[in-house]
Formats: sequence, structure tokens, C-alpha cells
Amino acid sequence: VGLTLGELAEKVGGEVVGAADTLVTAVATLQNAGPSAISFCANPSYRNMLSNTRAVAVILRQADLDLCPVAALVTDKPYVAYARIAALLHPEPGFAPGIHPSAVVADTAQVDPSAWVGPHSVVEDNAVVGAGVFVGPNCVVGPSVAIGPHGRLIAQVTLCHATQIGARVLLHPGVVIGSDGFGLANDQGQWLKVPQLGRVIVGDDVEIGANTTVDRGALDDTFIGDGVKLDNLIQVAHNVQIGAHTAIAGCAGIAGSATIGAHCAIGGGVGIVGHIRIADHVQITGMSFVTKSIDEPGVYSSGMPAETNQTWHKNIARFRHLDDMARRLRAVEKKLDHE
Amino acid sequence: VGLTLGELAEKVGGEVVGAADTLVTAVATLQNAGPSAISFCANPSYRNMLSNTRAVAVILRQADLDLCPVAALVTDKPYVAYARIAALLHPEPGFAPGIHPSAVVADTAQVDPSAWVGPHSVVEDNAVVGAGVFVGPNCVVGPSVAIGPHGRLIAQVTLCHATQIGARVLLHPGVVIGSDGFGLANDQGQWLKVPQLGRVIVGDDVEIGANTTVDRGALDDTFIGDGVKLDNLIQVAHNVQIGAHTAIAGCAGIAGSATIGAHCAIGGGVGIVGHIRIADHVQITGMSFVTKSIDEPGVYSSGMPAETNQTWHKNIARFRHLDDMARRLRAVEKKLDHE
Amino acid sequence: VGLTLGELAEKVGGEVVGAADTLVTAVATLQNAGPSAISFCANPSYRNMLSNTRAVAVILRQADLDLCPVAALVTDKPYVAYARIAALLHPEPGFAPGIHPSAVVADTAQVDPSAWVGPHSVVEDNAVVGAGVFVGPNCVVGPSVAIGPHGRLIAQVTLCHATQIGARVLLHPGVVIGSDGFGLANDQGQWLKVPQLGRVIVGDDVEIGANTTVDRGALDDTFIGDGVKLDNLIQVAHNVQIGAHTAIAGCAGIAGSATIGAHCAIGGGVGIVGHIRIADHVQITGMSFVTKSIDEPGVYSSGMPAETNQTWHKNIARFRHLDDMARRLRAVEKKLDHE
Repeated sequence: VGLTLGELAEKVGGEVVGAADTLVTAVATLQNAGPSAISFCANPSYRNMLSNTRAVAVILRQADLDLCPVAALVTDKPYVAYARIAALLHPEPGFAPGIHPSAVVADTAQVDPSAWVGPHSVVEDNAVVGAGVFVGPNCVVGPSVAIGPHGRLIAQVTLCHATQIGARVLLHPGVVIGSDGFGLANDQGQWLKVPQLGRVIVGDDVEIGANTTVDRGALDDTFIGDGVKLDNLIQVAHNVQIGAHTAIAGCAGIAGSATIGAHCAIGGGVGIVGHIRIADHVQITGMSFVTKSIDEPGVYSSGMPAETNQTWHKNIARFRHLDDMARRLRAVEKKLDHE
Repeated sequence: VGLTLGELAEKVGGEVVGAADTLVTAVATLQNAGPSAISFCANPSYRNMLSNTRAVAVILRQADLDLCPVAALVTDKPYVAYARIAALLHPEPGFAPGIHPSAVVADTAQVDPSAWVGPHSVVEDNAVVGAGVFVGPNCVVGPSVAIGPHGRLIAQVTLCHATQIGARVLLHPGVVIGSDGFGLANDQGQWLKVPQLGRVIVGDDVEIGANTTVDRGALDDTFIGDGVKLDNLIQVAHNVQIGAHTAIAGCAGIAGSATIGAHCAIGGGVGIVGHIRIADHVQITGMSFVTKSIDEPGVYSSGMPAETNQTWHKNIARFRHLDDMARRLRAVEKKLDHE
Repeated sequence: VGLTLGELAEKVGGEVVGAADTLVTAVATLQNAGPSAISFCANPSYRNMLSNTRAVAVILRQADLDLCPVAALVTDKPYVAYARIAALLHPEPGFAPGIHPSAVVADTAQVDPSAWVGPHSVVEDNAVVGAGVFVGPNCVVGPSVAIGPHGRLIAQVTLCHATQIGARVLLHPGVVIGSDGFGLANDQGQWLKVPQLGRVIVGDDVEIGANTTVDRGALDDTFIGDGVKLDNLIQVAHNVQIGAHTAIAGCAGIAGSATIGAHCAIGGGVGIVGHIRIADHVQITGMSFVTKSIDEPGVYSSGMPAETNQTWHKNIARFRHLDDMARRLRAVEKKLDHE
């Protein structure tokens, strides 16, 4: 089992330099590659590992070819080629379709004959499990949920009622989609629950990381666009809209009714307040707090970088009086002007 | 099925302007209302949508009545009235009581005959499941847990041993209550686990969002007061006390033994350090870091708003030398004084 | 049931002052101790509670002995002694080994005869469940996972394929280990999934809190060292390495390929960017954002402490022009120098 370097080049593009019949059976890092593994060099900082690699071949850019002691697959996008080759050499394990005897599937649910429903999973009334879908162990597919073709629920995933999932969606353990949004009306000091009546609509080719939560809309729906990638432990509140091909890193929180554009990259731990709009192609660096709409593509930040505790304490003490400092500076300027 | 505008006014209060016999069957947003839906206008920024709405009636304040092209329910608190009407028109689906054959219920557990225990749920020794409680699929109700009347565990909820849940508590998927607190004693560089022997006590009318965790007390108990509302992905550490009718938004973290007052509103991503006290009626805005006790009601903040990356970098570079800037400003002031 | 103060001193060290035959049956706080309970005084701020305690004995330092109205166990490390005594007086409940009839265990899995697999748990192909392991209800032990001796999976834990767990590891509800890392290659604006082929290796004596997630490595493995303690709702990304005896508080996020040293203490809500190294014995205070490698032991910070909203707004407005302020200060200094 494996493919030759030539066959790989045919499938993913790129130019072979060296023996096209080199057999490749696995992918590996430059540092830890064993015999018959192909590695990649996409980041200049790993260049110095090229000379000592024991990989049989390396995927790299033309500029790094000189440093490569073995066969190479030359391409402008080594990381993309690597991703494709890794998927070819290490395909997802297949599965036999069917319903595990311990699964509980409602009579009114439709499970495609090519789908799998794993042990202790529950598929409730009027749910639709599409062609080639894999529902792993201990999942809950709620009433009237629809899962498009070739979706994969790894394990312990919960899809609440009426959640709509597109094609080829990958949901990691602990994901919750369609839970009630945080809708509260304050009635003389007590919180009255506002019924959450919308749904969550998830597009095609979406991936959602472990223990991430996406709330259903209050009235209209929450939308996750095609190709969106969410990392672990992210909170997506009710009526959020996330544009196509946007990626969000772990521990981010998106408050209610925020609209995020397409092709955005949101860093880890970022907070986005509710009811604002973020344009397409916006990048937000880690632990920033987005408090206003962003209309222009670009990079935005507010994460405070750590310093030694001693320096930090001194600066924080000054920060508390920054307004005062600014006034004093103005006073000094005036005094100098009048002299 | 539905109610007339007059019937709704009778049940939730407010004055009907227009045809009291208008039939209302659903709630909807101003923008997306279809025939026979009632909408609401609680926020001045949605006023401009009034004129084009296709709702049959709108819940609104007297001041907005002029702009309303259809029948109206006039009230001082349109959002509260809306929440009540939404619950009337879209009631929670009922359920037939019983225990699903796949559920595992200990002989010593007491499940009220009016309760439901769903598929693949586990109810352990000496647990008590009260009247009208709904335990959804794949839940774990640990030993000696008690769930008060009309509680709802949507799915995949875990209640660890001896957790006490009040009446009408709503727990969303992935909630964990009663897990061990993070209690560690450092013994010559290694962490020794401190047994966590307290419980979690949850009051009445509490709602807890998806994948939120509440740890048991180390010795005494962790308390969640009546009417508290917790959003998704919140961490409540051991021995925290949260006062009645406090609401906390997603991704917040409350460290051990912090005491939060009643009627507080804590924003998303807020961090609260351990062993401090926060007074009643305190509001903390998103992504703030509360490091000291707060004795006075009011609004508190420390979230840093995002700017363009370029501006941010410049300001951060200066912030690193803020203490030095303050000293230099003082020196300048002295020099000017002496001239 | 219970031990005398003398017996406790023999087992955990320390010197008895008062009646060595005092019977102790439980641990409790100074404030809430009932008859026959032992309490402890490790923190000077609790000293004032000594005089009124109803505990039969108190674990404390020599310096606090004068204030103690009852028998005492004198030790330099009262909290460590307390932790040991609490474990002696309140041992974990035992369990009868076996496999619950509702559990689904693959034919090729090996479950040690001294282990327990609870209701609705799933143990997949080639998994190994070691001696004395407790797998609670609704857990998923994926293919080729190995759990070392005396591990405890409380409930709803998911271990994805090939995860390796050391001895005496404690995993709280909702923990997910071995989920796919967030590996994406950008191909003309769309995100291509990079197969995640590494594993997670967890050392001995590790504890991981509720709903915390640890992703598998992209190619090489993610490592959690011996004695590491992770609190709730922490995200550990792919290829992170955490050194032995490091503790991380709730809601922290560690980005991909970050390497954290041994004996570190990382506060709640901290964010650590990817591909950096943190030395041994580093302490990072709550809600800091670590953006660069840290080479020296010490304390590091960047959390911004909350102030009143009014003060905050003023200072933030100035912060936006901090670079400008710095330039103006420099101009003033120059002007003064030239006079």
C-alpha cells in the first residue's frame, strides 16, 4: 500500500525532482520521518531540518530545492499539497452501514441505508440522516434534525431539534448545536425566559471542534456558512451569522446577532460583542475584544502581551491614571507655548 | 390554534389598539413576520422596520404607536410581554411520563411517576427525580442527586453525586454540575489532590447553558441562587456563590470561593478571581478581569477594544514604557515649576 | 469509623498537641466543623476563625498554635497534611469490577478483570482498559486507546482513537482527548482539512477537568506530562507539550505546538500563542496573553484589572492615542532642553 512520488504528483499537482518511482506510504515531519515517508517544508523556519531528514521525499517550494537531500515534489503551495497527500495516504477508516442494536431510532426518523448510527446513539422523531453519514457512539440527533450526505459525528455530539446540517460536515465530540440562546427579558428584577424558536443552519464542508456550542436563533435562524471551520470550545450565540470560509480559533465567543463576513480569520480567545457586523476578509488577532462593527478588511487587535509581573504592575498603576497624565501633558504643552 | 389579540392582552397585560379579534398564531420578527404572526418593537433601532412589517399585530410602547401600520398591543415592557406571548403561542412540547427501556435506573433511585427518563440515561443509587421532570437522552444523574419538580435536562447532562437541583431548572446539553473542584496542595513540587467533599446546590428557576461546568465545593457547598441564568461554556469553580437573579454571559470564568451578589449582570468572557466578593446589582462589561472585591453597585469594565493592528502595535509599544513616560512627565513638570 | 489524632499524625506526619486519642471522623472548615471533625488553618486570613471553631482538632503551623482552642496537629505544611487526612477519612467509593450489561465492548478490546465499564459506555476495537480502571457511565473509549492502571473516567468522557493514558489518571465529565487538531491549509480562499494523524499521550497522575479538550497531534503527538493538573474548560491544541507537574486553571487556551515547561502555574483564562516555549517554573497570572517565548522562571502578567466603567472609558480613550502622547512628551522634553 502506498503511491509513487509520480502518482502523487499526478493527483495533487507539482513537479517531481528525483526518482518518480519512489514509493511513499506515509506522511511525517522532517524531523521524525522514517523510511518511505514523505515530508514537507512549508515554513522557512523548518528549512534547517531539510538536510538531516530521513524522509524519502519532501514537498517544498522551488526556493528550498537546493537544500533537499532527497527526492522532491516542487510546488508553490507545499502545505496544500501536503494536506492532499496526507488524505490520500491516510484515508478516514471506512464503515459498514447500519444501525447498532443499542441505538434508539424513532419510527418516524429516516436513516439512509448507506449511513451508520453507532452504539447508544439516539435519533429522534422525523430526523433525517443522509447518505453515507457516520453517527458515532453516544450521539443525540434531535427531532426534525437533518444531516446532509457524508456528515460525520465523531461521538457524544448533540444536535437539538430542527438543526439543519449541510453536506460533508464534521462534528467533533461534545459539540452541541441548536441549544437555546441566552434570551432573557428583565421583569422587575427577575429574568423571564424568552422562548428560542429559531434553528441553526449549518452549510456544507463545515468542521466544528470539540465542546463548541452553537445556539439556535431566537426567532430567525443562526447561520454557519459553507466551509466555515470552528475550533474547540467556541461559543456561537443565537442569530449569529458566520460567512463562508471563515475560520475561528479555540475559546472565542461570538455574542448574539453578530454578523461575521466571509473569509475571516478570528484568533483564539477573541470576544465579539452582539449586534455588530464584521466585513469580509477581516483578521482578528488572539484575545482581542471587538466592540464595534468593522467595515474594512484588515488586521485588528487588542490582546495585551504579557510582561514580567513587576513591569506589568508598574504600567498598570500608571494606566489607571492615564487620563490624568494626558491632562497634565496638555497643561505642560500650554505652559511652554505661553512662555 | 392561536389566540386573539384581545385574549393575549388579557393574559399578559397591555392595551389593544385595533381589532381585538385579530387571530394570532405565532411570533416573528418585524422583518420576517408572515400572516397571523405577532411581532414586537422593544428597541428603538428597530422602529424603522415597523412601517413595512407584515405582522398582524405588534407589541410596542405608546411612543411607537404612530409608526405602526397594523393592530398593536401597547405596553411599557414590550419585551416582557413578547416573552410571555411567545411562551403561550409556542409552548414546550409535552411528554408522556415513564422510563425508556434503554435507561438504566438504580433500584434505590426514586423516579416520580410523572417524570420521564430518556433513552440511554442513567439514574444512579438514591437519586431522586421529581414530579414532572424531563430527563432527555444520554444524561447521567449520579448517586444521591435530587432534581426538583419540573426540571428539564435536555440531553447529555451530567449531574455528579449529591448535586441538589431546585424546581423548574433547565439544563442544556453538555452541562456538568458537581465535578471536582480544582483543589491541589503543592507537596515538594508535586500536586497532591485535595478531596472535593462539598456539593452543588442549585436554586429554583435556574437555567444553565450548553457545556457550562459547575464544580462541587471543597468542603462546604457551591451555591447557585434562585433565578440565576448562566449562558454557555461558563466555568463556575468550587465554593462559588452566585446570588439570586444574576445573569452571566458565555465564556465567563468564576474562580474558587468568589461570592457574586444578587441581580448582577456579568458580560461574556469576564474573569473573576477567587475569594472576592461582588455586591448586589453590579454590572460587569464583556471581557473584564475582576481582581478585587466590588462593594458598590455600578458598572465596571476592563475589556480592551480592538483597533487596527497598526495602531495597536504602536500603542502597545508605548504601554510597555508607560511607567517611564509617567516619570518623564513628572520631571518635565518639575523643570517647568522651577523655571 | 474514624481515626485518632495520633493515628493521623503517624500516617501523614506532624506533631500532636493535646489528646492523641481524640477521635476524628471527618474533615470540615473551621467555620462549619461539627463534632469529631478535624479542620485546618493554612491561610493567615482564616486565623481569626480559630478561636470559635467547634472542630475537635485543627491542622496548623506552630505559629498559629496559641490561637487554637482545641487539639492540634502541628506541621509546616498544613494544607498538604489536610489533603492527606481528607483522603484517609473520605476515601473514594470502591466498585465491583465487571462490565455493565448495557456497555458495548468490542471483541478485540481488552478489559482487565479488575476494571469496571459502566452503563452505556462503549469500548472500541483494540482498546485496552487497565487494572482497576473505572469507566463511568456514557463514556467512549475509542479504537486502540489504552488506559493505564487505576484510571478513573467519571462519566461522559471521550477518548478518541489511539489516545494513550498513563496510570492513576482522573478524567472528569465531558473531557475530550484526541479530537482532531485545528489543521487547515488555505487553498485559494477555502480551507482544506489537514489530516490529524498524531496521538495524545497523557502521563501518570494527571487530572483533567470537566469539558476540557486536548487535541491529537497533526503528525507527532500531543504530550501531557506526569502529574499535570488541568482545570475545567481548557483548550489544549495539537502538538502542545505540557511539562510534568504543571497546573493550569480554567478557561485557559494553549495554541498549537506551544511547549510549556515543568512545574508551571498558569492562571485562569490565560491565552498562550502557538509555537512558543515557556521555561520551567514559570507562573502566569490570570487572563494574561503570552505572545512570546519565556526563557526565565518568574511571574508574568497582562490581565487588565477592572475599574469603574467611567474611569475605564476615560483611560481607554487616552490609550487609543498613547503613541501620540509619547511623541508629544518627547517634543516637550526637547523644547525644554533647548531653552
